[in-house]
Amino acid sequence: MRDFSSNHAALALNTATLGHNLDGYGAGWSPEQVIDACAARGYGAIVFWRREVGARGCEIGERVRAAGMQVAGLCRTPFLTGRDAGSDDEVRSAIDMAAALGAEVLTIVTGGTEPGTKGLTETRKRLTARLAGHAEYAAQCGVKLGLEPLNPMLGGNRTCLMTARDALEICDEIDAPNIGIAVDVYHVWWDRMLPQSLLAAAPDRILSYHLCDWLENTSDMLLDRGMMGDGVADLKAIRMAVESAGYAGFCEVEVFSAEKWWKRPPNEVLDVIVDRFRTVC
Amino acid sequence: MRDFSSNHAALALNTATLGHNLDGYGAGWSPEQVIDACAARGYGAIVFWRREVGARGCEIGERVRAAGMQVAGLCRTPFLTGRDAGSDDEVRSAIDMAAALGAEVLTIVTGGTEPGTKGLTETRKRLTARLAGHAEYAAQCGVKLGLEPLNPMLGGNRTCLMTARDALEICDEIDAPNIGIAVDVYHVWWDRMLPQSLLAAAPDRILSYHLCDWLENTSDMLLDRGMMGDGVADLKAIRMAVESAGYAGFCEVEVFSAEKWWKRPPNEVLDVIVDRFRTVC
Repeated sequence: MRDFSSNHAALALNTATLGHNLDGYGAGWSPEQVIDACAARGYGAIVFWRREVGARGCEIGERVRAAGMQVAGLCRTPFLTGRDAGSDDEVRSAIDMAAALGAEVLTIVTGGTEPGTKGLTETRKRLTARLAGHAEYAAQCGVKLGLEPLNPMLGGNRTCLMTARDALEICDEIDAPNIGIAVDVYHVWWDRMLPQSLLAAAPDRILSYHLCDWLENTSDMLLDRGMMGDGVADLKAIRMAVESAGYAGFCEVEVFSAEKWWKRPPNEVLDVIVDRFRTVC
Repeated sequence: MRDFSSNHAALALNTATLGHNLDGYGAGWSPEQVIDACAARGYGAIVFWRREVGARGCEIGERVRAAGMQVAGLCRTPFLTGRDAGSDDEVRSAIDMAAALGAEVLTIVTGGTEPGTKGLTETRKRLTARLAGHAEYAAQCGVKLGLEPLNPMLGGNRTCLMTARDALEICDEIDAPNIGIAVDVYHVWWDRMLPQSLLAAAPDRILSYHLCDWLENTSDMLLDRGMMGDGVADLKAIRMAVESAGYAGFCEVEVFSAEKWWKRPPNEVLDVIVDRFRTVC
């Protein structure tokens, strides 16, 4: 397992940790402010959200690289399934934005259960069909697609993939070289099958690893994630599982926290992350 | 699979469906009112909560049986793990109450992560140690203990068992004839491994089957369950999995619903349940 205690070059900031994934949260820093603050602290990469990138993909991507970092990813495609699924054009637009940014991975949260259906079978079929088409276009654009399984509490309206195994099975069905999964502590910490599921995966299927913590008393399904070390997830064991399966990429800190971290000054949050990354992750 | 379309003798009411699991909810019916209303509609059994039974276990149990029904269960022991774990005396008290009621099964929600620990390993050890002791006492009292895995969103402060498999492994470790699991639609609907996990279980390990539905847009982690048919769970498929593994007992309707069903008149709720049980379960 990699030793981060005196080296945080593998650390990436997901800007959702500053509230940039939703309107009305956080300090409202520009991408340039985020880039400068991360570079000054030695972060290795940044992951942006579409709403803060807009039509400035190339410009922001260049700026990140000029500062000595990488764009590890972009969040995220519109939903592919369920009542709120986006159109194919919207999905291609997100792929285009990832390409413009030079983002390694475009994250996919699948969306929920297909209207008029029960369980997961029909929704998974729809997901596989849509993904297969978009994987080819993404490959042409040099973009990898990272399927993110979500905590089962987000089934219904946000996901049809509840475990790493669920997501890996879809990858195997599509079998495209640029499709893989994103492993997020918040979503997988509880899954005792995780090490086994990841070890059984085809090589290079893990495209991202997301850090945060699961708070003992989680008060909100979406916006009450913990900073690493503040919760009950066994972060070292989870990283061991991810790295034992071959992952050697960035560790991306993604803390949705409306009542705590989004209210703190971004400079303070970025400092805390570096410290926690070196000590508890 | 059993055909319930014209026979609801297997239907049980869990009184949480009338808000009886928490103070300040529901219409406040007495156990006697519940018994009479269920008997009048041909329910086969009732499951009570400790707070409504108090010191009247024998009396209430006799009344249920005199009305031609059974006491399918009692909810529930104090937590066995985590910060809010109850004492051994409190657990034995719950077992005594189940025995007094003549309840077939005493449900166990394990409680959360042990203070000062990360992940699930240490907590599971504590759970197994405590359960092994209480299983013997429960056996002397003629009570079965039903470990209920909860939706992973309730990890941290309420459970260390997230799947049927998690719970069955504990049962195998303890290997007492009166320990098994409770399968609740709300907690397991998303688990694609469920049929396989249940089929692999030792005989007679499934002690209870709980019905409700998972709403597409679940707004609260605890108190926003759906009535059967109103959500996205594939109820027939789940029951098929449970019955294929040998379960032939009651189907217990347990709908925590602060904003909807707990505000309706109990008589109406009880009628709706019979209708839904016959048509969509």
